[in-house]
Amino acid sequence: MDQHVLIVGGGFGGLNAAKKLGKSKGVRVTILDKRNHHLFQPLLYQVSTAALSPADIAAPIRGVLSKYKNITVLLGEVQRVDLKANQVICDFGSLSYDYLVLACGSKHSYFGKNEWEIYAPGLKTLEQATEIRRRILTAFEMAEREKDSELQKQYQTFVVVGGGPTGVELAGAIAEISRHTLAKDFDNINPKRTRVVLIEVGPRILTAFSPDLSERASKDLESLGVHVWTNSRVTSITEKGVYIGQEFLAAATVVWAAGVAPSELNQTLGVPLDPGGRVIVESDLSLKEYPNVFVLGDQAHCLGENGKPLPGLAPVASQQGKYVTRVIERRIKNKPWPPFHYVDKGFMATIGRNKAIAEIGPIKFKGIIAWLAWLLVHVYYLIGFKNRALVLIQWTWSYATYKKGARLILSRDWRTHNVSAPRSGEVKATPQALEK
Amino acid sequence: MDQHVLIVGGGFGGLNAAKKLGKSKGVRVTILDKRNHHLFQPLLYQVSTAALSPADIAAPIRGVLSKYKNITVLLGEVQRVDLKANQVICDFGSLSYDYLVLACGSKHSYFGKNEWEIYAPGLKTLEQATEIRRRILTAFEMAEREKDSELQKQYQTFVVVGGGPTGVELAGAIAEISRHTLAKDFDNINPKRTRVVLIEVGPRILTAFSPDLSERASKDLESLGVHVWTNSRVTSITEKGVYIGQEFLAAATVVWAAGVAPSELNQTLGVPLDPGGRVIVESDLSLKEYPNVFVLGDQAHCLGENGKPLPGLAPVASQQGKYVTRVIERRIKNKPWPPFHYVDKGFMATIGRNKAIAEIGPIKFKGIIAWLAWLLVHVYYLIGFKNRALVLIQWTWSYATYKKGARLILSRDWRTHNVSAPRSGEVKATPQALEK
Repeated sequence: MDQHVLIVGGGFGGLNAAKKLGKSKGVRVTILDKRNHHLFQPLLYQVSTAALSPADIAAPIRGVLSKYKNITVLLGEVQRVDLKANQVICDFGSLSYDYLVLACGSKHSYFGKNEWEIYAPGLKTLEQATEIRRRILTAFEMAEREKDSELQKQYQTFVVVGGGPTGVELAGAIAEISRHTLAKDFDNINPKRTRVVLIEVGPRILTAFSPDLSERASKDLESLGVHVWTNSRVTSITEKGVYIGQEFLAAATVVWAAGVAPSELNQTLGVPLDPGGRVIVESDLSLKEYPNVFVLGDQAHCLGENGKPLPGLAPVASQQGKYVTRVIERRIKNKPWPPFHYVDKGFMATIGRNKAIAEIGPIKFKGIIAWLAWLLVHVYYLIGFKNRALVLIQWTWSYATYKKGARLILSRDWRTHNVSAPRSGEVKATPQALEK
Repeated sequence: MDQHVLIVGGGFGGLNAAKKLGKSKGVRVTILDKRNHHLFQPLLYQVSTAALSPADIAAPIRGVLSKYKNITVLLGEVQRVDLKANQVICDFGSLSYDYLVLACGSKHSYFGKNEWEIYAPGLKTLEQATEIRRRILTAFEMAEREKDSELQKQYQTFVVVGGGPTGVELAGAIAEISRHTLAKDFDNINPKRTRVVLIEVGPRILTAFSPDLSERASKDLESLGVHVWTNSRVTSITEKGVYIGQEFLAAATVVWAAGVAPSELNQTLGVPLDPGGRVIVESDLSLKEYPNVFVLGDQAHCLGENGKPLPGLAPVASQQGKYVTRVIERRIKNKPWPPFHYVDKGFMATIGRNKAIAEIGPIKFKGIIAWLAWLLVHVYYLIGFKNRALVLIQWTWSYATYKKGARLILSRDWRTHNVSAPRSGEVKATPQALEK
């Protein structure tokens, strides 16, 4: 009888685990995700700034794994895990397992201020990316038809909270589209007067990099017109802007890139968590009390060679996904297995056209070389040949023309007839409404 | 002083008028649309069936017109028109005009049963297309995890109401993705058991074509596995399916393609309308009592050479848009102008891979030749080189692999933190919330 491996989450960790287990003998695999697609999160900021379409950076999990006959893909949401009974309870029923791989990732965190989300969306999903795109493009449209210069200024002010890679990439991209892509398209506003403010609580941005590279990134941002405010803590966010202590910065568009928290599922597991809420795992990524359960990626607290927990990066999750399948294979055969070892390939961040920084061990890159390296690496890792080709074409076109391919403002409601919902509360989609 | 031409609507009529007036001297132009993009509606069904991304068939109006210095583009919605005062009252203020071009198009109509919309979305906007895509792809996912065979059947039943070109193209595309694209990707369902039912109230589908071509289209649809039910009137739609008289067809997904109605603005104009609600225009598309106001495209009732009103097709609106600019130019110079003459280039409909029909005057095409002609014409007319190239690549790739490029299920809510809205009612986007 084949061993049943249940993978929860189709991100970098889960998908890589599944792809490797698809080639294994003696296992059958179920992969469960609440979304039907794997998302290439490192490029999400490009969707939010109208450079790429959602489908360019997403691939249906079912399609990616369809060639493996031992894998079943299910759309569904985990409600809780019964670790003692080896069961996962989902919205549509229960699934039992011999081995469980939890790779549920993280979502953005407002550090207890969830009410800020409505004014300052985070950037973790395609829905959020298109919502941010809608807000950015709408703000320009509102500025165009606005007569009051104070309000116009407010529409033209964009605040990005958080100076990590996502915040830096977003701020750079917003500054670029306002200077180049939109510059000729407006009559009544001067897109060059657009203010982009990047707010960072710490003394410098991109703290994962060495100080000289983070200094370079700051300078690159300033050259694009981004104001970098370090040592600044956001104390409140309203529909009109952002408070930094007593100071108020009026801004129509605020984006949150200041923190992530692991999946809330962690709270229900009843296992030791670190202060950030991540599951503390053994050196083989398993749970101490449940050696057939593995937790990886953003959801796990796993120590690196340097004694510090590994960062929440795609390469970490990918390597862990592949590693876990090796452990499972060896355990089924009663062979010993080595602890997880992270191969650090360095990290990079892009600031804009021809501007990036990269750090690979002691080697540091910046400027156009780092940017080309960034381009190469990201296109290479995009899943599926089709996405790669399309993304390359879009980028080449955007680069040559300064235009963006996906300047769409889409409404959040698809309905056009003003009829009240048939039931109280949120209207359900037809398929869900069929539930018995 | 330049004459001010105000164009309402950035569809085929309005955009073509604007592009031509952009080259005229002695006029300044304002084009107003409630959306920021021109939409290539003939390919909308491809977005709803996951073949293309929204941005592939849309172009920002502002970007398309940015090279014309005499054109201002505004995002906004018309509330009413004061024809006597030469003023258009919008959500953000009033605009006065010397000439007014109304090209607001149409939306789908439920013939007084607007409450059906929630169960059977129409296909006129990108939001509706992605909603339909969500429902179709979700239905397959629900069928995959469903144990009850009756419910599974219900999830695998797709009903398209209306046998015009949109209905036929949708039904064919749904049948195709279920037979080919998704066939290998599911374990627990047999995608070939998918039922697609096309319901038409009249005795045959595609009534704009001659009977033998419409017969051929029916056969092509049947060969793809579509059940064509003619002489069938939908009497009720619920969350569980469709009633045709006493008969009940259980279906999780229903799409409405049965009728369109012109913009509701028509009702407020106080000018003669035809029974369908379209504005009856003079032979030069102007209003009898207001010769400086033109109405065109789906919004107008304009007689063709054969004494019948012209159909609601993109070529009609495009030609009318170009014609109207000629009239305005000649009137400014006090020169006479000819009546509108529609050059009928024929029409075509596609049923699926290698299957289409086309009728150009007495000449009839079918099969792969018609399909290639359809492909060529549609790619050619897609606005902007970039969209054309991307769409061609997607189509070639889909054709070669039977895969679809945009198999995304996106949620309708971008929020991830469960916090009640800060105000009662629908939460406003930050930019809108700034309104004084």
